[in-house]
Amino acid sequence: MATKIALLQSNPIVGDILGNAEMICQLAKLASDSGASFAVTTELAISGYPPRDLLLQSDFVDSCHKIASELKSEIPVLVGTPVPPAANRSLPGNGVVRAGDSVREVTRKQLLPTYDVFDEARYFEADERPGIARTIAGLDIGVTICEDAWQHCGATPNDYDNDPIAQIVEWGRQGVVLDATVNLSASPYHANKSGIRIAVARSAAASLNHPFLLANQVGGNDDLLFDGRSIIAWPNGEVVVAPAWSEGVLMTDLSNPEGCTWIGEGEISILKSGQELQETDDDLLDAVIIGLSDYCRKSGISKIVLGLSGGIDSALAACVASAAVGPTNVTGISMPSRHSSQHSIDDAKSLAEALGINFSILPITDLHSAADSELAGILANGNPVAGENLQARLRGLIVMAHANANGAMAIATGNKSELGQGYCTLYGDMAGGYAPLGDLYKMEVYSLAKQFNKRLGKEVVNQSTLTKPPSAELAPDQKDEDSLPPYPVLDEILRLHIEDGLDATQISDKGHDSNIVNEVLTRLARNEHKRWQMPPAPRVSKRAFGQGWRQPLAAKHDWRQ
Amino acid sequence: MATKIALLQSNPIVGDILGNAEMICQLAKLASDSGASFAVTTELAISGYPPRDLLLQSDFVDSCHKIASELKSEIPVLVGTPVPPAANRSLPGNGVVRAGDSVREVTRKQLLPTYDVFDEARYFEADERPGIARTIAGLDIGVTICEDAWQHCGATPNDYDNDPIAQIVEWGRQGVVLDATVNLSASPYHANKSGIRIAVARSAAASLNHPFLLANQVGGNDDLLFDGRSIIAWPNGEVVVAPAWSEGVLMTDLSNPEGCTWIGEGEISILKSGQELQETDDDLLDAVIIGLSDYCRKSGISKIVLGLSGGIDSALAACVASAAVGPTNVTGISMPSRHSSQHSIDDAKSLAEALGINFSILPITDLHSAADSELAGILANGNPVAGENLQARLRGLIVMAHANANGAMAIATGNKSELGQGYCTLYGDMAGGYAPLGDLYKMEVYSLAKQFNKRLGKEVVNQSTLTKPPSAELAPDQKDEDSLPPYPVLDEILRLHIEDGLDATQISDKGHDSNIVNEVLTRLARNEHKRWQMPPAPRVSKRAFGQGWRQPLAAKHDWRQ
Repeated sequence: MATKIALLQSNPIVGDILGNAEMICQLAKLASDSGASFAVTTELAISGYPPRDLLLQSDFVDSCHKIASELKSEIPVLVGTPVPPAANRSLPGNGVVRAGDSVREVTRKQLLPTYDVFDEARYFEADERPGIARTIAGLDIGVTICEDAWQHCGATPNDYDNDPIAQIVEWGRQGVVLDATVNLSASPYHANKSGIRIAVARSAAASLNHPFLLANQVGGNDDLLFDGRSIIAWPNGEVVVAPAWSEGVLMTDLSNPEGCTWIGEGEISILKSGQELQETDDDLLDAVIIGLSDYCRKSGISKIVLGLSGGIDSALAACVASAAVGPTNVTGISMPSRHSSQHSIDDAKSLAEALGINFSILPITDLHSAADSELAGILANGNPVAGENLQARLRGLIVMAHANANGAMAIATGNKSELGQGYCTLYGDMAGGYAPLGDLYKMEVYSLAKQFNKRLGKEVVNQSTLTKPPSAELAPDQKDEDSLPPYPVLDEILRLHIEDGLDATQISDKGHDSNIVNEVLTRLARNEHKRWQMPPAPRVSKRAFGQGWRQPLAAKHDWRQ
Repeated sequence: MATKIALLQSNPIVGDILGNAEMICQLAKLASDSGASFAVTTELAISGYPPRDLLLQSDFVDSCHKIASELKSEIPVLVGTPVPPAANRSLPGNGVVRAGDSVREVTRKQLLPTYDVFDEARYFEADERPGIARTIAGLDIGVTICEDAWQHCGATPNDYDNDPIAQIVEWGRQGVVLDATVNLSASPYHANKSGIRIAVARSAAASLNHPFLLANQVGGNDDLLFDGRSIIAWPNGEVVVAPAWSEGVLMTDLSNPEGCTWIGEGEISILKSGQELQETDDDLLDAVIIGLSDYCRKSGISKIVLGLSGGIDSALAACVASAAVGPTNVTGISMPSRHSSQHSIDDAKSLAEALGINFSILPITDLHSAADSELAGILANGNPVAGENLQARLRGLIVMAHANANGAMAIATGNKSELGQGYCTLYGDMAGGYAPLGDLYKMEVYSLAKQFNKRLGKEVVNQSTLTKPPSAELAPDQKDEDSLPPYPVLDEILRLHIEDGLDATQISDKGHDSNIVNEVLTRLARNEHKRWQMPPAPRVSKRAFGQGWRQPLAAKHDWRQ
């Protein structure tokens, strides 16, 4: 029987060292029972990724290292773990230890991504050469860590002066014969990223002229999602991909793609040379649901509450919440004001009933009147936006009261388009512990709502919600389009700027009205202060607000004028 | 007459390239009119520091570089500016161009700090050698940028494999004779940091065996403060230090400390070898005021509103606001509830009158009753903290209504001790665009209130406010000490952990009750989610929340148990 290598695609909780170790042991046992000769975890599997400032605590690093090294397993396991600083250095390494048979440090990461959502140069010291696990189940295996493999095919936005895959290729030329190279990864998800990751694996395997095995983390940690999809790539371009969004073990038969198997939910994909993996709206919907469900599970949150306006955003947010923690753990509150239409209440009710979530109607009319009286002197001659925000904040107050009284988490229902434009109220509809739609453009919200209906095989989000013109309903006959460009236009302008890095001129050159483009980009810059206070949102686009899009706050942004 | 070098200690607005260029020209003219032969700006003076993600826009970098290069000046100026990526690289450099006489690039920064509040490895490519400005006013000058000088005396928390000061020393050995070395800095303030910065300058001058001149940015940008205090250090340990918190020009006579002069407000300090600069509470008070005033000025905010509870935090916040934007631009609102004492209203009124700010009393009793009715079903059997938060949020609602109606900025009045413990209400007292006391421990709030009284020569913050036991007054007879350790104890535990990096055991070993220590550190970890949503706060301690203290949110933090 051929030697089988097991890739442990696991979903760690950041900081839960003992729990993560136990989970690795369980997966390793599954692998061992199925005939694996040794196993490989994901990057920093013991600490979970990203451990952020926990890494600044030396006893945390020491604990991770100790527990990784002492891991009990019947087969050898290459475990991703923080490792203590090298002699005379102050920062730890992002390393791999071999546990199970003989304990030793195998390697430390060389390329430390420090862009977008990555901050590794803050936390780690870079090493200078890749590792080899010698005679592990009779094989000699090259060992690399995530980014180490990305420079080789030019898939990193910044340059490194080093290419660990090329180093191993060079060793090969000098007679160091390896049977395979593994890569311990925590490569975050964004929509349509799997193609790039597969290209990285194919490029490495082709250059190395032996199989390249990438074990990737799965699940959500705060605002970062990991889709799993661990990969085995052969030099001829054949690829086996593990399923997304589920824990499990990818059992590798180095000599035969058809002999690879998956232990866990879902199916593997086998791609011939040149074949691509197709991502769908269904996949994006999974991403958003996993983000929220893992955030809740890992934070010890079992109940969710949200305001249901009857609009599309809160409708999809309720669908996602319902899928994440179960409908009976979700409460939707309709809070009509004097400006609300009857369809707002009807549509909210229809949604709640279709989902089977808890639902109540709490009109804010009386509270609104009391606040109007209290604030009469303040609001009288002021900016009318104060009165609009007031309603949003009264609703925030009610949702938060429910959350605090019942130990539930409020979720904010805003999408990336409106957050980008500041078309939202701080402490109002922005209130909440998590913003499940915060990295989805408005038109994606519509798509996913339709996708959710399709998945459940019924019209959970009804036609009225899907087709009526978006309105905040904070003033009589208000429509979003009174303040913003039509969403298909707005989304595209934002996308061209945020995701593709185009400036105003370049966007106008693509046929957009330059006045509209300038308005959109100006509002984007001016509303940075709101986004600094937004709750974490699952990162599903190429560039998310937050760590990956952080402008100065009090800056003059109009440097182009 | 000896050649004079002018250090331009300026207060740039991040992103305002043209405005910053104009300000540099004005200072250079002052310098030139006073007989300077050439001038040196601070680090990235053209873009302001820190430009953050603006640096990801190549047209921003190009504009900075162009405008810095084309700067009009009668004397040569070494200008700090982003410079475009080197050939075949993707990231720009943090550089220095020579303008005024012949335009050329002089150097790029070698050591890119990427820890605490610094993120430079995200944005810049590191260079490998320091620069020399040759025959600038007849002198040959070594040119370094901020961190470049810090490795030499071991003052960086992380290690670099390079020491630019040692490189220049080595050049000296090889016959490259320089007259002085300059350093363009944007070295942020924290209390008592000036001693370290002076040690860096002395160490460099001693090793270089020629004067070392450090031009430092001044003023606030978002949550970062810069104190100025540009430095000239001689090899014998003599030092001249420019004043803190004011723009101006430090005119250097290389041959004579007594011949150095300051053009601007304030006085220079001349320190003999071994002498230190004394920082005082008055200095800390200046820091907090400058933080808020620059944030307002640079954001185009002229008016501030805050809730006045009669307690010490809102009292000091009002004092700071009054000093920052002028008392007539500040509005304090007393919002007593059924749980408020009469002294709360009296003390708030007394403070407002003493400061001369606008003041109004808006009891929340009716609104509170209306909310209680609205929420009766929700609050009935729930966690009583929901009812407490409700009051804080009603106050937040009123303050925000005032802010939105009048184009004012609300400020949050919380301090670092309570924020660290989560003893504050999201969207309630945490609401606001800026938290002027957010990096001050509670006992520092008391000290600064007394200091403010001293500065104004009258009891602005009255004895009642200074001496009554702290209370949130959200429940009958509530005292902070019912929920938290006494503040002197709490502050010290937090300080030992946050600033000095001690763990629970080490803190207990210093004589603190281990149960209290564990409670405090557990609450600190569990309340990270609130701090992710706190407004910017001026960084005045060694380690601030935010970029410099960012734990995973949904992590299991109890990894020690």
